[in-house]
Amino acid sequence: MPGVRVAGVAAGLKPKPGAKDLFVAELAEGSCMAGVFTRSRCPSAPVDWCRRILPNGRGRVIVVNAGNANAFTGTAGDRTVEATAQAAAALFGCPVEEVYQASTGVIGVPVPPDRIGRALPAAISALCADAWREAADAIRTTDTFPKAASRVTEIDGTPVTLSGIAKGSGMIAPDMATMLAFAFTDAALPPAVLQRCLTRAADRSFNAITVDSDTSTSDTVLLAATGQARHTPIGEADDGRLRAFRSALEDLCQDLAQQIVRDGEGARKFVTISVTGARSAVSARRIGLAIANSPLVKTAIAGEDANWGRIVMAVGKAGEPADRDRLSITVGGVRITRSGQPVADYDETPVAAHMKGSEIDIAVDLGIGRGRATVWTCDLTHGYISINADYRS
Amino acid sequence: MPGVRVAGVAAGLKPKPGAKDLFVAELAEGSCMAGVFTRSRCPSAPVDWCRRILPNGRGRVIVVNAGNANAFTGTAGDRTVEATAQAAAALFGCPVEEVYQASTGVIGVPVPPDRIGRALPAAISALCADAWREAADAIRTTDTFPKAASRVTEIDGTPVTLSGIAKGSGMIAPDMATMLAFAFTDAALPPAVLQRCLTRAADRSFNAITVDSDTSTSDTVLLAATGQARHTPIGEADDGRLRAFRSALEDLCQDLAQQIVRDGEGARKFVTISVTGARSAVSARRIGLAIANSPLVKTAIAGEDANWGRIVMAVGKAGEPADRDRLSITVGGVRITRSGQPVADYDETPVAAHMKGSEIDIAVDLGIGRGRATVWTCDLTHGYISINADYRS
Repeated sequence: MPGVRVAGVAAGLKPKPGAKDLFVAELAEGSCMAGVFTRSRCPSAPVDWCRRILPNGRGRVIVVNAGNANAFTGTAGDRTVEATAQAAAALFGCPVEEVYQASTGVIGVPVPPDRIGRALPAAISALCADAWREAADAIRTTDTFPKAASRVTEIDGTPVTLSGIAKGSGMIAPDMATMLAFAFTDAALPPAVLQRCLTRAADRSFNAITVDSDTSTSDTVLLAATGQARHTPIGEADDGRLRAFRSALEDLCQDLAQQIVRDGEGARKFVTISVTGARSAVSARRIGLAIANSPLVKTAIAGEDANWGRIVMAVGKAGEPADRDRLSITVGGVRITRSGQPVADYDETPVAAHMKGSEIDIAVDLGIGRGRATVWTCDLTHGYISINADYRS
Repeated sequence: MPGVRVAGVAAGLKPKPGAKDLFVAELAEGSCMAGVFTRSRCPSAPVDWCRRILPNGRGRVIVVNAGNANAFTGTAGDRTVEATAQAAAALFGCPVEEVYQASTGVIGVPVPPDRIGRALPAAISALCADAWREAADAIRTTDTFPKAASRVTEIDGTPVTLSGIAKGSGMIAPDMATMLAFAFTDAALPPAVLQRCLTRAADRSFNAITVDSDTSTSDTVLLAATGQARHTPIGEADDGRLRAFRSALEDLCQDLAQQIVRDGEGARKFVTISVTGARSAVSARRIGLAIANSPLVKTAIAGEDANWGRIVMAVGKAGEPADRDRLSITVGGVRITRSGQPVADYDETPVAAHMKGSEIDIAVDLGIGRGRATVWTCDLTHGYISINADYRS
C-alpha cells in the first residue's frame, strides 16, 4: 500500500510474555483521516482523544494496543493517551493532533506508565510495507485468527488500493461494539469526502453485525488516505467517479465485519438475516437485529433446531411495525409461513438439513413496505459461556 | 380464597402422557377482571381474545393450557379460542365474554381440535378451593418448580386476601415475556380500579424482571376480584383506603416475579440491580435492564468473576444520560468506582467473595438526577444453552 508502513510488536501489555500487543502504522505526510466510534456513553480515553483530533482531518501515525482497553481509567487514562501522543509525535516529527490511538482489552485497569512509549522505538524499527500479518496479530484479544482484507478499485480510471485489518469477537454489537478496524487507501480524498464514504460503508458492515448485543467502550474504525494515487481530484462524496471506490470500501468493510462474526466467541455457525418488506430501512435493520440478538434464536441455531417460532417471537418483540398475517419467514430458501401460520404443506426435512450446515440463511418479509436490511450474526454456544464466564481468571 | 375454585388436570397437550396441562379457575358471579399483556406485535390467539373481552370487565372462568402456545396458528388458532370459550360458557352458564384464556408452549403448531373442550368436564369435576398446587403445576413448561404466593391485607379495616400462581423461566423479559400469572382476591373493586392497581404493580414486578431479554407472544397477567369481602365500596384507585391493598398486590406480584427469575432457565444466581441517581425513573429502569440483559455481565456472574468493567460497558450502551466521572458502582455493598476510575484503595477480595454467593447485589448510582428503579435477573450459564439448544428435540 503506497504511503503506509506497519508494524506489530510486543509492548508487555498482554499477560503472555512476548505476545504482540502494539500495532503502529506510519502514514505518508499529508494523509487524510476519517473515523467512526462507539456510541457508548462511557467511551474509553483513546476514543475521546480520536474524537477530539478528528476535525483536523490529518494523520501521520496510528498507535493501537491490545491487552488493556484504557477505559474507565479516569484522568490517569487521559494522561496515558497524551503521553503516547507526545512520544509518537516526537519520534515521527508531527503534531500530537496527527497521532491516532485505540486500545482494546480489559476495562478499568490503568495502563502501566510509559509501557507504550518505551515500545515505540522498537515498533518504528520494525515498520515495513508488508507486515500486515504482524499488525493484525498485535490487535487481537480473544480473536482466534487475524483479520485482514484488501481490494483493488479505481477512481476515474486510476488504480487505487484499499487494505484493512480488524479485531473483535465478543462484546460485538452495532455501534461498533468491541471491535477495531483500520483501513488504508492510497486514494487522494479530502477528509470530508473520506468521512462520508466511511460512515456509509460502516453502517452497512460494522454496524450491521452483532455477536452478543454488547456495545463496547472502545470501538473504533479509522480510514486513512495517503493520497499517493495520481487520480483526478474529487471534491464531493457523491461524485459519480467515486462509485467504484465507495463500492469497494463497502465490500472491504463487509469482508472485515463478517470475519469478526465468523470469529464470534464460541461461534460455530455464520448467520445471514435478510429483512425485506419493512416500513423503512431503519425498521428493517431493527427487526434484523432483534432476531440476531435473541438468545433463543441463537441457541436454537446452535442446537440445529428449525424452531422458527422463535423468529416470530423476535419479530414481535422488535417494537417495529409488523402484521402477523403478512409475515413470511424463509429458512435456507424454504418458505415456512404464509398468512400468519405455517404453509399448508410445510415439510421440515429440508429446513432441518439446512440447520445442520455452517452457513444459515434466514429471510423475513414483513409484507408492509419496501424497507430492507441485511445483518450478520453467529450462534450462541457453550463456547461463548466458557470464554466469558472465565475471561479474567 | 372466597369465590374462587381451581383445578389442574391433564388434557393431553404436553407430550408426556398424564402430565397436568390444563388449569381452570371458576370465579364467583359478578367477579371483576383486570389484565396486562405482552407488547409483542405477533401476539398469540388467546392474548388477542383477552384484549377483546377485557373492556367488559367481568369474568366467570379462566382456562389456561400449557404445552402449546396457540401462537402464529392463523385463523385455526382463533377458532380454537372461540370453541374453548363456547364450551366453557355452556358448562358454566355464562356469556363467552366472561371466559378468559391463556396458552403457553411451542409456537406455530396448531392446537389439536377440541382437546381442551373435551377435558373441561373433568376439570370442572376437579374444581375445589385448595387445589392451588395442581393449578400451579398445570401451567408449567420448562419451570422446575410451581410458583405461588399469598398475602393477607385489609381494605378500610376489612380483611382481604390475595393469592396468585405464575409460570415462566425462559423467553422472559420486560413487557411480560413468556410468563403467565393469575392473581385472585376477594376484594370488591370495580374493573377500572382493579386495572390501575394491576398495571402499577406489574410495572414494578413482572415488567422489572428479565432472564434473556426475549419477549414472548403470550404473556398474560390476570387479576380477578370476586367481591366476597364485605368492605366499604371504593370507587377510585388512589383512594387512601386502598394503600395497604395496593402495597400487598405489588408485594405479591414481586414475589411471583422473583420466583420466575429464580427459576430462570439454567439460573444459578439471583441478581438484584438497583439504579439510583438517574435522570428519571424510566431512564433508571432502562439502564438497569441494559445491565441485566448484557450477556457479558450475566456470564461474568455465572463465572463468579468480579469483572465490573462490564457493568461500565452496559451503562454506556444503554443510550441513556450518563457521566462516566459521576458513575458509582457498588457490588455486594463494596464501593468500586469513584470519579470515573476504581477507588484508590479498591480491594477485590470482599467483592470476589460476594460473587461466590447465590444472591448478587449490584448498585449503580448515576449521580445526575433522582430517578431510581430496581430490576431482577439471573446469570447466563451452560444450563441456559443446553435447555434452549435442545428445547423441541
